[in-house]
This record gives sequence, C-alpha cells and structure tokens, in this order.
Amino acid sequence: MDLLPKDSSGLKIIPLGGFGEIGLNMAVFEYGEEIILVDCGLMFPDASMLGIDLVVPDITYLRDRVEQVRGIFLTHGHEDHIGALPYVLPEVNPPIFGTALTLGLVKAKLKEFHLDEKVDLRVVKPRETVTAGCFSVEFIRVTHSIVDGCGLAIRTPEGVVIHTGDFKIDQTPVDGELTDLATFARYGEEGVLALMSDSTNVKREGYTISERAVGEAFHELFPKCPGRIIVAAFSSNIHRVQQVVEAAVASGRKVLLNGRSMIANVQIARELGYLRVPEGLLIDLKELPHLPKEQVCIISTGSQGEPMSALTRIAMDDHKQIKLTKGDTVILSSRVIPGNEKTITDMINHLYRRGAEVFHEQVSEVHVSGHASQEELKLMLNLTRPHWFIPVHGEYRHLVRHARLAQKVGIPAERCIVANNGDVMAFSAGEACIIGQVENGRVFVDGKGIGDVGEIVLKDRKHLSEDGMVIVIIGIAMYNGQVIYGPDIVSRGFVFEDESQDYLEAARKVVTDKLAELNAEVMGDLNEVKQEVRATLRRFFKKTIERRPVILPLILEM
Amino acid sequence: MDLLPKDSSGLKIIPLGGFGEIGLNMAVFEYGEEIILVDCGLMFPDASMLGIDLVVPDITYLRDRVEQVRGIFLTHGHEDHIGALPYVLPEVNPPIFGTALTLGLVKAKLKEFHLDEKVDLRVVKPRETVTAGCFSVEFIRVTHSIVDGCGLAIRTPEGVVIHTGDFKIDQTPVDGELTDLATFARYGEEGVLALMSDSTNVKREGYTISERAVGEAFHELFPKCPGRIIVAAFSSNIHRVQQVVEAAVASGRKVLLNGRSMIANVQIARELGYLRVPEGLLIDLKELPHLPKEQVCIISTGSQGEPMSALTRIAMDDHKQIKLTKGDTVILSSRVIPGNEKTITDMINHLYRRGAEVFHEQVSEVHVSGHASQEELKLMLNLTRPHWFIPVHGEYRHLVRHARLAQKVGIPAERCIVANNGDVMAFSAGEACIIGQVENGRVFVDGKGIGDVGEIVLKDRKHLSEDGMVIVIIGIAMYNGQVIYGPDIVSRGFVFEDESQDYLEAARKVVTDKLAELNAEVMGDLNEVKQEVRATLRRFFKKTIERRPVILPLILEM
Repeated sequence: MDLLPKDSSGLKIIPLGGFGEIGLNMAVFEYGEEIILVDCGLMFPDASMLGIDLVVPDITYLRDRVEQVRGIFLTHGHEDHIGALPYVLPEVNPPIFGTALTLGLVKAKLKEFHLDEKVDLRVVKPRETVTAGCFSVEFIRVTHSIVDGCGLAIRTPEGVVIHTGDFKIDQTPVDGELTDLATFARYGEEGVLALMSDSTNVKREGYTISERAVGEAFHELFPKCPGRIIVAAFSSNIHRVQQVVEAAVASGRKVLLNGRSMIANVQIARELGYLRVPEGLLIDLKELPHLPKEQVCIISTGSQGEPMSALTRIAMDDHKQIKLTKGDTVILSSRVIPGNEKTITDMINHLYRRGAEVFHEQVSEVHVSGHASQEELKLMLNLTRPHWFIPVHGEYRHLVRHARLAQKVGIPAERCIVANNGDVMAFSAGEACIIGQVENGRVFVDGKGIGDVGEIVLKDRKHLSEDGMVIVIIGIAMYNGQVIYGPDIVSRGFVFEDESQDYLEAARKVVTDKLAELNAEVMGDLNEVKQEVRATLRRFFKKTIERRPVILPLILEM
Repeated sequence: MDLLPKDSSGLKIIPLGGFGEIGLNMAVFEYGEEIILVDCGLMFPDASMLGIDLVVPDITYLRDRVEQVRGIFLTHGHEDHIGALPYVLPEVNPPIFGTALTLGLVKAKLKEFHLDEKVDLRVVKPRETVTAGCFSVEFIRVTHSIVDGCGLAIRTPEGVVIHTGDFKIDQTPVDGELTDLATFARYGEEGVLALMSDSTNVKREGYTISERAVGEAFHELFPKCPGRIIVAAFSSNIHRVQQVVEAAVASGRKVLLNGRSMIANVQIARELGYLRVPEGLLIDLKELPHLPKEQVCIISTGSQGEPMSALTRIAMDDHKQIKLTKGDTVILSSRVIPGNEKTITDMINHLYRRGAEVFHEQVSEVHVSGHASQEELKLMLNLTRPHWFIPVHGEYRHLVRHARLAQKVGIPAERCIVANNGDVMAFSAGEACIIGQVENGRVFVDGKGIGDVGEIVLKDRKHLSEDGMVIVIIGIAMYNGQVIYGPDIVSRGFVFEDESQDYLEAARKVVTDKLAELNAEVMGDLNEVKQEVRATLRRFFKKTIERRPVILPLILEM
C-alpha cells in the first residue's frame, strides 16, 4: 500500500531492494514530483527458488510515477547493480548515467535483449557532476572488484546524500585509480545529510587486502606450476584478468580465454582501454594441443561450480578440448558465493581426482575481497561525517552491525537508520523518520516468464521435488455415475515404476475398493470423488511407505 | 562385481563408505572366512537428494557373507558412525562392541525401530581387548566432540591395524579422559601394519583448540548477557552441554532443555554417569514464564537452521512458549555443516530481527572442532609409525592432502593408499595392493522405503522441481483412432493456473491442431501419439516461455 501523498514535502529515500539481502540493489530518491534511481540490480536464485533463473525487484511503486523518473545512476557494472535493467527499462526508461566501463557492460547486456537501440546511455567521468531534475549528482571514484566503480554524491534540496556504492579503500589498485578520499572529505567538510555505505564485509576486522596482493601470489605461484594453469575468476573482475595476463607473460605462458562471458567482457574492457593484453598472447582452442603444457594459462569462468560451466565439465573429465592431467594446477580466484559451498567443494574433489593441484581462497592468497572491512568503513564514516547514517548492501545482520560500528565512531544510535526494503525514509528540515512502506518484493524470472511464477508455483515445485507426483485417472459416465475407465495410476519421482509395479497395483486396488464403496450421490459430485480418492491414497502412502507425494486425481466425465 | 575368491589369502580391508565423503563410515576387515565391521554410519542428504530422509551404505557385499560376520565395532556414538545400524541389523546381526555411552545411544536408537530386543550389545572399556574370530581388538581412548570415543587396535594374522576413529588430541578434556597416547605408542613400538586416520581437518594447521576453551568463553560471556541465553548445540556433544550447565550455574541461571534429542541424550548421559547436572537446575516450559529473563539458559537443538526445529521457530517468532526480545542472546555452539550455510545465515538474520544478539563460530570462540589438525595428525603418525598409511573419513581432497602430510613425516608415497569406497585393499606377507572393487554405493531412505528411490526417481524429482509438470489427457477410440476425449491440460509447478488460463488454452489448441494433422496410422500407435504430443508441447513451451516442464501425455484407449 502506498501511504504517501504525492505532494508530501521533503526528500524521500526508498530502497526497492538490497536492504536485508545481498543483491537486487535499487534505491529511489524522490523530491516533490521528481525521482532518480540508484542502481538496478538482480539477484541469483537460492536453492529454495526452484527452477527460477533470476530475481528482479518489484517496481510497482514506480509504475504510477514513470514520467517522474529523471535518471538511473549506476555505481558500477556488477549484475547485482545493473542486471535488472532489461526487465525495468521496458517500463521505466529515463537516461542512464554511469562510467564508461559500466555502460559498456550495460550496452552488451541490453543488446542481448534487443533493447540497446532504445536507451539513452550517458557516460560520466569521476568528479563530473550531472543534473537530473532537482538532483545533481557527482561521481566519485572508488576501488572495487570491478574497474571503473564510483560512489555518488547526490545533492538534493534537503542536503547532500553520499552513496558509496560497493567499495574498498585499496591503496595500491592495479590501475592506480585510488578511492577519491579527497572528494569524500570535501563533502564531509561541507556537511553531509546522510551516508549510505556498503555493509557487505562489516564483520571483517582491519583492512581488506589490496587487489595487488593477488597478482603477487600469481607471480610467485605460476613459475612453480609444472603443467597447465587454469585460473577461474569472475569475468567482470578485469583487474584480476589483467594480473593473470601479467603473470602469464612473466612465466612464458600463452593465454586461452574460456567461457562466453569471459571472452565478451575481456573484449569490452580491451576496446575501452581498461585491459592491456600484449599482441599474440591470446590463443584459441585449436592452438591449445600444439603448445607444451607449461606454456599454457587458461582463464575461465565457472568458479562457483555451476553444473554446466566449462570448469565443471573439465573437472568431470567431460570437456572435449581440455583434459586435466597430473601436474596441472587449478586456481579458484574468487569468493565462494553463499549457497554454492557444496557445488564448489564437489568440483574441487573432482579436480583432485583428475590429479590436479587446487588453490583456492581458503588455502592461499589467490583471492581478495572487493568490499571494505571495518577500518575502511570507519574511515568513510569519519571522512564524510554524516548527520544520518543508513547502512546499505547487506543482510539484516550486516546492517545491524554496520549501525553499531557507526556508533563506535560517534554517530548517535538514533541517527542510524536500519531500514527494510520498501521503507520510506523521509528527510525534512533536519528531521528524519520512516513514514511508511511501499509495495516491494522479489519478482521471479523463469525463462521468458516474468512474475508468473509466484509462491504457489514454487510451493508446488517444492512439494513435487520432495516425494514426486502420483496421478490417478478415472473416467465416470455422466449419465449414471458409474466408473467406466480406470482407475489408472501413473507416477513420476515417487517410486521407481519398473520395480514397483506390485506396489502401484496395490494402490490402484485401494482406489478401486474406495470407488466401489461410494454411493451414487457422492459419485455424482466430481469434486467429492476427487477428495475421497486423494484422502484414500494419502492414507495408504503414509501408512505403507511414509511419503507424501502430490496426488492429482483426474476425473474424466465421459 | 565381486572379483575375489572367498578363500584368497591375506587380510582384506574394504571401505563400504566414508572414503571420499563425510558420512557413511563403514569398513570391512576380512581374513579367510571371517569378517568384522568397523562402524556403521549414515549420511544426511545434501540438497541434490530431493526428498530423501537419509542415506545408508550399500551392503550388498555382506549379503552373501552374513554368517561370516563376527562383530561390529563402534568407535563412537555419532550418527555418521552408528546411524545405519537400524537398516543393517535386520540383515547382518552379529554382536556389537562399543563403550557404554556409544551403546547407550545405539540402544535408544534401536528402540525406536523396535530392534533393541533383538541385538547383542557388549560394552567394552578402553584398554580392554575383545576377540571376534581371528581378530582381537583393543579399544583405545580418544578425545572427540562426543564423550567415550575410542580408536581401535585390530590385531590380525597379518599384523596390527590401528583405526583412530574420529579424534583430536585434547590436552585438557572436560572429563579428564586424555587420548591414550601411551597405548598408541606401545603399538608403534611393537610394529603397526597400517594406520587408518581421521582426515576431516587435514587442511587446518597447528592444533585444534581444547573443548575447555569453549567453557571459558561461556564463563566470560554469560554474566554479560542481560536477558535469556539460548545455546544451540548438537545433543550428542555431552561435554558441551556439561560446560553450558556449569556456566549457567556460575551465572545463576536455571536450565531448560529444548528439543527431543537434547532431552533424550541428556537423560542417557546422566543415567550412565557422563553428565553431572545439579538437582533442581533443570526447569520445564511451564516454569519458564515465572523466571526473570536473566535467570534463564536454554540449551537447544536446531543449530543448523533446520526449518522445523525449535530454534528456527523461535527465530521466526513462531514458537508458542519461547519469544525472543531485545537483550536476549543466542549462541550457536556448533560447526556449520557444509550445505547448511544458507539456512543458518537466514536464521541468524531472523534472530537479529527479533533484537537478539547472536554469537557463532565465525565471530567468537563458542565452538571448537572435534577433529585433529595437522600437528595432531603428524603426532599420531609418528607415534604409531605404520608401515602402510590409509587416510580415512574425508572427501577425496582431504584424503589426498592427508597422504601428503604423511609423506612429510617420512611415510613413502608408495605406502600411502588413497582408496575409494569399495576398493579391496589386500595385505599379505608385507605387500599390499588394491586387488579389486566390490559393489558399493549409497542407498536412499525415503520414509519407510529403503532403496526404492534411485537415480531415476531423483532425476524426475529434480526435473519436476525445476519447471513443474504438464499433463495432457487424450482419449482415443480403439476402433477407429479418433479422439473422443480431450485434449485436457493440467499443470502443477509450471505456471500459476488461475492466472494463466489463456496460456494453457493456447497450449491445448496446439495439441488439438497437431492431433488433427496426424494420419490414421500414427493415431493407431499410442506411443507415436505420445511422442508427437510431447514434442509439440516441448517446442511450444520453449518458444513461448522458455521452460522445460516434465510433459506427461496420458493417452486413454476407450
């Protein structure tokens, strides 16, 4: 329900996603009749979202306000910040502001959806300010696990709101582009109404290690590897790719890019000048067999053990061109996304079975995080000295702990706002409060269907997945209520039909007996027959085998 | 296939589970016509085993040899070492040897299956030796996360095999019962044919922290907690419970036991003298509301975020008697079992939403492992100085790394046997080799069904869980091949039927059109009709909605 009159005064900040969850980052900034959005991200489904391809935020709140949206501001090019654009732009299509690489990635994504011709992408450089309605927004360079990331200083009639985006304070970034502390400090001096800051790593003490440390680990490791090296990384982590490339060059190895998104993102980054790859370094699959093993380095996707990925197929010895042998080395240079632990360790076990040596985050320094740890978060708070503090980008526990951290550096508890998705935070004349809730939630994308799979369908899928399905077909004559066909029983995912014919026959018999018991009145009411059949079978299955399949009686009137 | 003649000479060791996986621990020791088994464990299903309750080892190998089995030796009372007994004992029922607590837990378990009267349980004390056929077995005290655990020295005609069971070398165990290094050393002096040693924690450097450290953490933490304290732990970890009890007494709190297995195991441990609880300390749910919050400590199951557990219901504010409020503290005093990461962090987020403070392994010392780290593993190797080394109890990567660790302390690589389940390791006259493979695998238990759910049924469940199911019912007249009923379409878990009537009607139309196209010859072959219908719908769904439901055409001959 929308509690707000459209003309209510003051600044409103409304997260439509990303508060109390990792992913779906999207925030509404509204003043009077004007709106800007910060980020437009997706979420990858967790194990409970059966068969779902991806999740996007519910934008119901925006549907009545399409004309008021003056711009979408993107902090960086990760999927959890740009991935919902193809689903949102058909309804809400204002100018999109972002840095060159961010918009490069957006463009490639929109192309797949045939939307690239229909959007207005506007490249912004760090320290540049753009105006959108009553808002003016300065982009501020931050370091992160993707290049060309920025925080935002959003100047509103009520004051300046700083949104950090995803950041760390890397003192030795690979491209030399430091987090622009001077600009954050300048706003702090001027006065900041509110700081919205990245909570992902709030539980980590100290500082996050520099991305450059990974490069050093590669340089140390590569010369010691006797065979091929496969490095699995996120394809958007261009600095990581750069460092693999450099370590490969230094150890006399050619580089093969493996995985569709790896090839695509490397091409975009090279075209835009974010990645330097020497001429002649890259090889393709055809050249692979002709190179000695110790001259090969493969950069691959699939670090999460995704079942269909190239790396998993290599691990299962199911890849046509790339076979692992003893002496080969696999480096998983990425974090373990929560929920993927099992598939990743399964893949590691298979890699060991192939005889490969495996390095990953837990056993060596082949990955560092892109998010700020406690000392960096405190530094950001002290530089910007905000009046209000709004922890963003985290599960609920992260937001709570980030608010506590802010209190340690002197922000009073009553000025730390731990908000939920949909909360309307209103700022007016120095006061702030949560004045209501707007419709918000998760929209499931399954194939081409957006939002047609809801909780009921998911519940059915879960039920089906647990004990399968039993279908009973019965034909009943319309004129006298007699059974003239069946009952037939067919099952899927319940018991192994070939070996359980006797059991299913027994179930059929139970239904036949029940039908014989029912009087003419009941037999005339098909819903009643359905219920009787379902109840009879449910009891029978529970007693004999303790399972609860979905039971679907199909009663045919004939 | 069974490659071995029954009369082949020498000692054979055949793991039926636990090699290359965590869980299902069970090993066959065979000499001539005589067999003993070490452990008989289950495995809890992972996310890919849809709807499965638990997993037990395939004991096909034993079925022809039931009469030869002289005994089952249990190292300790954890489910992954005793949990398959109710499924194995109906077929293989020799005397079962174990320590008092181990057999106490076994007895309670067998009672549930009405098997407790039918078995021969024989309590053994540490340093006691029992004989079973040509084997004589000494029990050797080890420390672990359950009390009364033992390793085994199995004397065979080919020499002594040491099996560590699950162990750590805790120098300050809660009950003062140290790992009996002297006895391990005595066997080392005498000469050990082979060592089978716990690989779970091989990746951890140094020493595993003493269980007593957890008690110290409790003693420090409890007095600082303003409200109720809930400690979630495994109910079998009696020392952990003991330490919570002591910290509760010291901080003036009464104790409520929560969860069926917690209540049962505490009772068993108290009866057998393994747990000391002062009179009047325990309270029940009725007394809870009458006690001030700061005088309450609840010990609960549910540390893994199991959906139906009491702790999850408390976190969701869905527990009738126990409500959390601001100031309450929840301590998750257990490890995160791989695969449960997501459900546990979900639960933590909900606990934070209730206003509770949460402590868990990752942020403080409220849990320590029960398994030996590298320095302890090396110590065990150096004490026993085995001729052959067989890493056990671990995923493949753990076994490989444990073998490498053994090489560091001087066991030659060719005497480290990294085996798989079913491998027949034969030892004869100083030589050893893997001489074959016996049938082995995982048997799924689903409700009362044991083994009737196999890979095909699981594959169906997975397919059903991803895009649901579409059923097409068509009645065809037998005498002329004309459609006289349907096609009707019913779906579950596919699209939300109430809102997708038009779409399903379009699908029905596609089938109707296809049937009209088919000639009489095809219509006479019901399998052909099925295939045509399935292919037609598959194309239609892919093109229009990009989903791949299970399509089940039911063709009724009428």
